Amino acid sequence: MSKVGIIMGSKSDLPVMQDAIDILKSFNIAVEVDIVSAHRTPEKLFDYGKHAHTRGFSVIIAGAGGAAHLPGMIAALSPLPVIGVPVKSSNSIDGWDSILSILQMPGGVPVATVALNGAKNAGILAAQIIGTSHAEVQHTISEYKEGLKALVIQSAKDLK
Amino acid sequence: MSKVGIIMGSKSDLPVMQDAIDILKSFNIAVEVDIVSAHRTPEKLFDYGKHAHTRGFSVIIAGAGGAAHLPGMIAALSPLPVIGVPVKSSNSIDGWDSILSILQMPGGVPVATVALNGAKNAGILAAQIIGTSHAEVQHTISEYKEGLKALVIQSAKDLK
Amino acid sequence: MSKVGIIMGSKSDLPVMQDAIDILKSFNIAVEVDIVSAHRTPEKLFDYGKHAHTRGFSVIIAGAGGAAHLPGMIAALSPLPVIGVPVKSSNSIDGWDSILSILQMPGGVPVATVALNGAKNAGILAAQIIGTSHAEVQHTISEYKEGLKALVIQSAKDLK
Amino acid sequence: MSKVGIIMGSKSDLPVMQDAIDILKSFNIAVEVDIVSAHRTPEKLFDYGKHAHTRGFSVIIAGAGGAAHLPGMIAALSPLPVIGVPVKSSNSIDGWDSILSILQMPGGVPVATVALNGAKNAGILAAQIIGTSHAEVQHTISEYKEGLKALVIQSAKDLK
Amino acid sequence: MSKVGIIMGSKSDLPVMQDAIDILKSFNIAVEVDIVSAHRTPEKLFDYGKHAHTRGFSVIIAGAGGAAHLPGMIAALSPLPVIGVPVKSSNSIDGWDSILSILQMPGGVPVATVALNGAKNAGILAAQIIGTSHAEVQHTISEYKEGLKALVIQSAKDLK
Amino acid sequence: MSKVGIIMGSKSDLPVMQDAIDILKSFNIAVEVDIVSAHRTPEKLFDYGKHAHTRGFSVIIAGAGGAAHLPGMIAALSPLPVIGVPVKSSNSIDGWDSILSILQMPGGVPVATVALNGAKNAGILAAQIIGTSHAEVQHTISEYKEGLKALVIQSAKDLK
Amino acid sequence: MSKVGIIMGSKSDLPVMQDAIDILKSFNIAVEVDIVSAHRTPEKLFDYGKHAHTRGFSVIIAGAGGAAHLPGMIAALSPLPVIGVPVKSSNSIDGWDSILSILQMPGGVPVATVALNGAKNAGILAAQIIGTSHAEVQHTISEYKEGLKALVIQSAKDLK
Amino acid sequence: MSKVGIIMGSKSDLPVMQDAIDILKSFNIAVEVDIVSAHRTPEKLFDYGKHAHTRGFSVIIAGAGGAAHLPGMIAALSPLPVIGVPVKSSNSIDGWDSILSILQMPGGVPVATVALNGAKNAGILAAQIIGTSHAEVQHTISEYKEGLKALVIQSAKDLK
Repeated sequence: MSKVGIIMGSKSDLPVMQDAIDILKSFNIAVEVDIVSAHRTPEKLFDYGKHAHTRGFSVIIAGAGGAAHLPGMIAALSPLPVIGVPVKSSNSIDGWDSILSILQMPGGVPVATVALNGAKNAGILAAQIIGTSHAEVQHTISEYKEGLKALVIQSAKDLK
Repeated sequence: MSKVGIIMGSKSDLPVMQDAIDILKSFNIAVEVDIVSAHRTPEKLFDYGKHAHTRGFSVIIAGAGGAAHLPGMIAALSPLPVIGVPVKSSNSIDGWDSILSILQMPGGVPVATVALNGAKNAGILAAQIIGTSHAEVQHTISEYKEGLKALVIQSAKDLK
Repeated sequence: MSKVGIIMGSKSDLPVMQDAIDILKSFNIAVEVDIVSAHRTPEKLFDYGKHAHTRGFSVIIAGAGGAAHLPGMIAALSPLPVIGVPVKSSNSIDGWDSILSILQMPGGVPVATVALNGAKNAGILAAQIIGTSHAEVQHTISEYKEGLKALVIQSAKDLK
Repeated sequence: MSKVGIIMGSKSDLPVMQDAIDILKSFNIAVEVDIVSAHRTPEKLFDYGKHAHTRGFSVIIAGAGGAAHLPGMIAALSPLPVIGVPVKSSNSIDGWDSILSILQMPGGVPVATVALNGAKNAGILAAQIIGTSHAEVQHTISEYKEGLKALVIQSAKDLK
Repeated sequence: MSKVGIIMGSKSDLPVMQDAIDILKSFNIAVEVDIVSAHRTPEKLFDYGKHAHTRGFSVIIAGAGGAAHLPGMIAALSPLPVIGVPVKSSNSIDGWDSILSILQMPGGVPVATVALNGAKNAGILAAQIIGTSHAEVQHTISEYKEGLKALVIQSAKDLK
Repeated sequence: MSKVGIIMGSKSDLPVMQDAIDILKSFNIAVEVDIVSAHRTPEKLFDYGKHAHTRGFSVIIAGAGGAAHLPGMIAALSPLPVIGVPVKSSNSIDGWDSILSILQMPGGVPVATVALNGAKNAGILAAQIIGTSHAEVQHTISEYKEGLKALVIQSAKDLK
Repeated sequence: MSKVGIIMGSKSDLPVMQDAIDILKSFNIAVEVDIVSAHRTPEKLFDYGKHAHTRGFSVIIAGAGGAAHLPGMIAALSPLPVIGVPVKSSNSIDGWDSILSILQMPGGVPVATVALNGAKNAGILAAQIIGTSHAEVQHTISEYKEGLKALVIQSAKDLK
Repeated sequence: MSKVGIIMGSKSDLPVMQDAIDILKSFNIAVEVDIVSAHRTPEKLFDYGKHAHTRGFSVIIAGAGGAAHLPGMIAALSPLPVIGVPVKSSNSIDGWDSILSILQMPGGVPVATVALNGAKNAGILAAQIIGTSHAEVQHTISEYKEGLKALVIQSAKDLK
């Protein structure tokens, strides 16, 4: 089965991006994690974006903060679906810069943007995408959602 | 091949959402368009979200404006990937409400959000998702991007 | 006398929502507290919204954070007045997402929105609504306001 | 049956506030419309707020723009539920000032705030409040919602 | 010589407003401090605003947070110049609500707004206003500014 | 009696600033209008700020848009009270830049800021400041406010 | 003498960017204009950024709108100073996305950002940079500024 | 070789501005540091701006917070390129005021603005400007960027 590429602009993004790694591993989906900085390693960015679809990846998750160009540049270079995670890094203005520089891509080059620091949701979305052609993954997603439901039901019971 | 469900909260969203319909048709991907209002037709919302994955849809594109609950509620009900299009409708505050109420989903229930009024990108993203298991669609995406490139190259020539 | 339904999207909202519970209890108005997640327990949401008016509730107070769909979806499903409390949860962008996704409801489906984390005011508003048909509750509100006044007058004296 | 007081800070708010008048009249609920400016007629504001609950009003709808103090000051003076309509007037900064100066009331003095220019929803909310003690009004609300549903269903049919 | 009235909506505003008191005292200008809540003591607000100009005040400084109506309502009631201090209180959204609900007054009723938590500047501005008719106060302001200059010059020397 | 200096950064600000000129003339207060650009005529700025208080001015009204430095720099140079009018000029981002660069002055150097494009209120505030030492001007302000009240009362009558 | 490279993401940015071309030409500084899209022609972006400093450019001016990655990516690839012009394009949210995605670059990779649509200032800044090593260009800048001053002085005379 | 003038509005800005000093020293570029307050030492501001280009400076870096007028006023007075550093000082509203009052300069008077608290990037940009006429400095920049790249590559290796 296809694997998910998870990249981030800096190792300081790892605490946020770990949620994507963890949830995908819990779904038994293979991930490959790397640090790729659009601004500090543009050649690596280019190489990564150009060849990701021939290296066995189905989906790429890219997280970055501030003027976050990594998700959009990978989307420019790859035919794969790219999921962008706006990271509220220390150099970010409450996250607004991260969100807008990932979300507001021009016509022709989408980035599937999730919530600020929403790496867990990025992982789930990647699984849902893989699930469109792998029934067992779609089933796992359905079971995962049932689990969320059970937790809420239980917390409601605890409340009473 | 699987089809894409395109829904919107009101017929007034159609001029924006038409871009998604058009680009998917140009990619020879089947679409089914409907109006589903989270707030005015909640039963239809429920029915749509609950059964979309058994009705032949691979991906759902949902557009809405203002306090836009349609994409998130469909994502709550379906195991399919849901793409959200924030619409800058007449009752929106410069689009901020549409963006934030689609993007900022809680952990567990992602919506793949695109730019404000970015329905064309929603269509392309849907095609990229289908392309993860349909090589010919991924190839179409690559060709489409080559076409965008050629247009820019030409416009640069015209400038000189 | 009618009771007030107080619901929240997650148990993590309870510290904020407790203010609504406390003020209503101090007014001798019955409350029933529950956890209903629009995104994790959509069936419970539906059931709650559809039947609240037949289960003895007069008013519903719903609190949620981030892309907060709970108040608006309950308002879509119930003929009762729904009071929305935007919660500044950990996944919220300074509360803006919570506020806008509760406040900016489309024409036809109002949510009576109070201030960010303003659960106490939600409780008072619920009492005011009940007070429109229960003179003793309206009287309690008037007395409560006199109490607020006395506190300010006293703090002004303390200052001098 | 009780009536609804609809006030606004300036006659220039009337085009927006007319929606509240119209929807309440269509529900056969009596309204009384007046212009009360917090800043230009503070004595009238005081008189209105102090005596509204003894003059047969059940609910007050107050609309204002810019630094909008009318809804909050009426709420300070009256035990009745007060619904605030932020008006995007010509002197407003995209409506943000109107929204925040109505919504962000301190603990003890709620204003039930609706969407920017959301006077129609203010009217519906007022009807829902009256409906908590008048079953026929609650029934009218339910029918109104069914009408909204039918319109969406029809527009979905027209689309196909 | 005339005195300055300093009022605030809550005793919790005192730590911020103390700066106004201190700077005016250091200028030997008499101040009278009080707590006046627009929303909890509207009668006191009315009385204060109506009679301030006959009680020996030349200028009023009013500080408040959140939906801050105190400065604007005093300005509505008094012919005196009113200086508004937006307070970043605990119930404020990063201060934006305080600023906008004080600054954006309608035509006819100005409030001289200073920076968020800028009570010191409110005091200086009050002194400047008194200085328009009291040469010795204007002279004090000039000397105060020379003092500020000397401090910067000294800190520049320390740096080298 | 003292006069009011009205300055603006560009002749394009005149349509907004005219409101200050008109209201002060209607109050029989002398004004002197000039164009002083902080960024294009810094020497004139310096000269104006340094000598305004010796040239018969009591108050200065300064209007500017975008990164609006004129009011703050005049306040830095003069012991007089300076009123700042944020102008929503064509190069402004919805007025936010104009507002924040005038309002958020550091401790020691206040600018009395009025609403966006609020030149009329700047004129009234200047009159209120002069009125602190000229009883007839304070009386004029009181009469002006009575006139505003009468207009609202009349428009309320017209409505009925 | 060195020349200035002016690039933009789309031909639709030309009306804004023309101001940079015009002002530099009026200063007799050579410009070379091109269209380079970070997202549609990433290879051209790479080639341009990598070789600009060996092709006779001293400074690069890059304009783009929305999620504007062009200036930052050129800055990542080139040792030259890069001036970024945020363009308020049709797909921009009032320009905030353009500004933040150009301004908020991470440590190590600066972009010299000018005002929204501030292409004229980008041209002047490029001339100032060249002027650091070309005395005659610095002299031209000084003369240009004298010209601005004269215009303001004249407009002030016209006013009187 | 030419030197860089680094100025700031207050000694409290030094912890942020130190990054500019450090990076330039590491590049062997001479810096001269001073405190110049636009609002507290306007005469020093004038003197500094008027004579910087004749005192051996090539570039000026100016940092300030809140209503930050220092960079823009220096740019008004000097023909040199001026780099502005918005400082998120204690009196700033999340940095928005600092950014907008530095960035949004009117046509004719640019300030090269870097990210909030981006003093390191200001230093690098100053070096890049000097590098346009000093090949060895441009070479240093290229080497510095190679160093950044190596750090990212290493951190990617560490991750695996």
